Amino acid sequence: MSDPITSRADAEAADAADVLAFARSRFVLPSGVCYLDGNSLGALPAAVSAAVVDTVTREWGTDLIGSWNTNGWWTMPTTVGDRIGALVGAAPGQVICGDSTSIQLFQSLVALARMRPERRVLVTDGANFPTDQYLADSVGRLLGLDVVRVSPGEVTGVLGPEVALVSFSAVDYRTGELWDAPAITSAVHDAGALMLWDLAHVAGAVPFALDDVGADAAVGCSYKYLNGGPGAPAWIYLARRHQEALDLPLTGWLGAAAPFDLASSYRPAGGAERARIGTPPVLSLRALDAALSAFDDVDLADVRAKSLALTSLVLERAAALGLESVTPRDPARRGSQVSLRLPHAYEVTQALIARGVVGDFRAPDLLRWGFAPLYVRYVDAWDAMATLESVLETEAWRDPSYANRAPVT
Amino acid sequence: MSDPITSRADAEAADAADVLAFARSRFVLPSGVCYLDGNSLGALPAAVSAAVVDTVTREWGTDLIGSWNTNGWWTMPTTVGDRIGALVGAAPGQVICGDSTSIQLFQSLVALARMRPERRVLVTDGANFPTDQYLADSVGRLLGLDVVRVSPGEVTGVLGPEVALVSFSAVDYRTGELWDAPAITSAVHDAGALMLWDLAHVAGAVPFALDDVGADAAVGCSYKYLNGGPGAPAWIYLARRHQEALDLPLTGWLGAAAPFDLASSYRPAGGAERARIGTPPVLSLRALDAALSAFDDVDLADVRAKSLALTSLVLERAAALGLESVTPRDPARRGSQVSLRLPHAYEVTQALIARGVVGDFRAPDLLRWGFAPLYVRYVDAWDAMATLESVLETEAWRDPSYANRAPVT
Repeated sequence: MSDPITSRADAEAADAADVLAFARSRFVLPSGVCYLDGNSLGALPAAVSAAVVDTVTREWGTDLIGSWNTNGWWTMPTTVGDRIGALVGAAPGQVICGDSTSIQLFQSLVALARMRPERRVLVTDGANFPTDQYLADSVGRLLGLDVVRVSPGEVTGVLGPEVALVSFSAVDYRTGELWDAPAITSAVHDAGALMLWDLAHVAGAVPFALDDVGADAAVGCSYKYLNGGPGAPAWIYLARRHQEALDLPLTGWLGAAAPFDLASSYRPAGGAERARIGTPPVLSLRALDAALSAFDDVDLADVRAKSLALTSLVLERAAALGLESVTPRDPARRGSQVSLRLPHAYEVTQALIARGVVGDFRAPDLLRWGFAPLYVRYVDAWDAMATLESVLETEAWRDPSYANRAPVT
Repeated sequence: MSDPITSRADAEAADAADVLAFARSRFVLPSGVCYLDGNSLGALPAAVSAAVVDTVTREWGTDLIGSWNTNGWWTMPTTVGDRIGALVGAAPGQVICGDSTSIQLFQSLVALARMRPERRVLVTDGANFPTDQYLADSVGRLLGLDVVRVSPGEVTGVLGPEVALVSFSAVDYRTGELWDAPAITSAVHDAGALMLWDLAHVAGAVPFALDDVGADAAVGCSYKYLNGGPGAPAWIYLARRHQEALDLPLTGWLGAAAPFDLASSYRPAGGAERARIGTPPVLSLRALDAALSAFDDVDLADVRAKSLALTSLVLERAAALGLESVTPRDPARRGSQVSLRLPHAYEVTQALIARGVVGDFRAPDLLRWGFAPLYVRYVDAWDAMATLESVLETEAWRDPSYANRAPVT
């Protein structure tokens, strides 16, 4: 580890020495903004605009329907899926890109539960992201399973012969806690159950080894640290060893073995392609494909090192200011975010945004900052803390305009 | 009806008199192409490119996360949904745009079946588009329903106290037959069952009155006659009278009443918004929103009249050439396409494409042409038939290169 950063000059020196500094030029960032919300919506990669324009004007406008073959539209769910797979430790042929995380959760929860038909319990985390919990409840109801909630760190207490599958997020969206995926997966398997990981807050920021960990399935979004754009397609990982046995519920025609036979009864495609559902969202897939080029020649170990250095800087400054963090200080237990528990966290978040420090608020009392190492600099982290200190010291957050809650934050 | 078109000069005169002629300039069309595949992928509306660039560069690139509020991202599933609703006879507040047709089928099939829990039969059409049949089978299995297949024209033969719901496409994707939606819906309701219409081959080409017909739910895609682009978001219509009772299975967090309360248990939003699932695909929604402006100031009665005139022209020329059509000659029973049954239909389709007449092949023996009245001219229909006549007369389709089947057609 490098020396602690205790001044803005230290931060500038760390940026000058940053092996990932080259990556920032791959993004378009507004001036005067310190963007710490890449764990909600990643910044715009510079390559996206031209790629989307080409897809719209040339591929769609000129080549029209023929583009399904000639411009690779047909294979995008697998080609883009494999690019994402490379960032989460999945060998090719196991990741399909498309739909939303909610849909991919539904697909994988049902498919895994059907592999353990004699077991009647589905385990999730009561602090899991809402959509993970809601889909677990819906699947439990459809399949007649009991849904049990437990923190990932305490999963061994509920494992037993009744548990069919366990569905956790590898990083807690609220606290930023990184769970011990290898140990948890191993314990779940030892109990004869299957393991589904949600990597929404992992992909692109924290190295993960899906194949090595032995995950049975995984899902994630691509609009956070993968920078695929607002509502970018999600993805699903189906471990190769299970693929031929997987019985997926969302039997869209493009998951069929021979879609253009136009048969009346469904016969699934071989391999992960059975996880295709409807016609793929080509414009969004192209934007994401271009966005992923921001990771070309990037070593995820460097990403992880910088992520931890940025979050350490913030945690140390926060501790010096006497602020409470809900994010673990142990680097091994931390994702790529810092969440501070503050009185009036909503108003403070708004006051910071008004001063160009963009993070988000998570009810009831958290200021949440995400650190995307490809474009967030050490001086950004430093300046964000200096701005926070100023907003708290001057009580600038008391401005009544900061209390007007917009429908979405 | 205007006089029959029996020469290219007649076709040119019809174009000169066409009240919809202004609409063609709203599209970007490659020169030398007669595009009759708008029932598979609609042509590019001229407004799309600038709208998408603005969304990428300004809204995403500059305004970043704030765009969910300031640029209307949050409300796009409903604002775009209402625009589609206006084209299919749905008053505002009943259509949500997003996901794929397969997903929307799953949502609506489960929700409708749950409204008739004491009935155990789901009716679909054995000639329905594959994804409609596959999802019906999947839902039948999940809910323990028997799936019965019958042609829409013969539905009364299977209606009875066991039928929970009926799911048909209003226009047959293969033959182009338009079913009598008011009569079928009425018969289904008389039997105490619920009616789901798939309007994939209707929206934008054939007027439809969802509210007046009394449909309980409907779905459709937006990449055919709505010209939303490859893999554009689908849509779901949920009749207002059912909305508060609908129990949807895909309980994504954005369908919850208060998503940012981040609660552990799902409580559905009021109204149609409970059909929202995951984070909406903003780039695709913006492309579709811009595409729909091609319908501004367009009277759907004019669209229907031109559609029938174009397909009549083709059917009459085909009859004169002794070709077999599977599309009804009765205008009241016809959508906006003509499907001709031909020996070597695959090779003929390829030979036509090579000559700039772009249609598609549907197994085993159909040449399928769709007529999008906003941009297809009478001379296009005339020239397409002249080219077909030439390809058949000269047996140009025998060129061996036309037999090489691409994976997608």
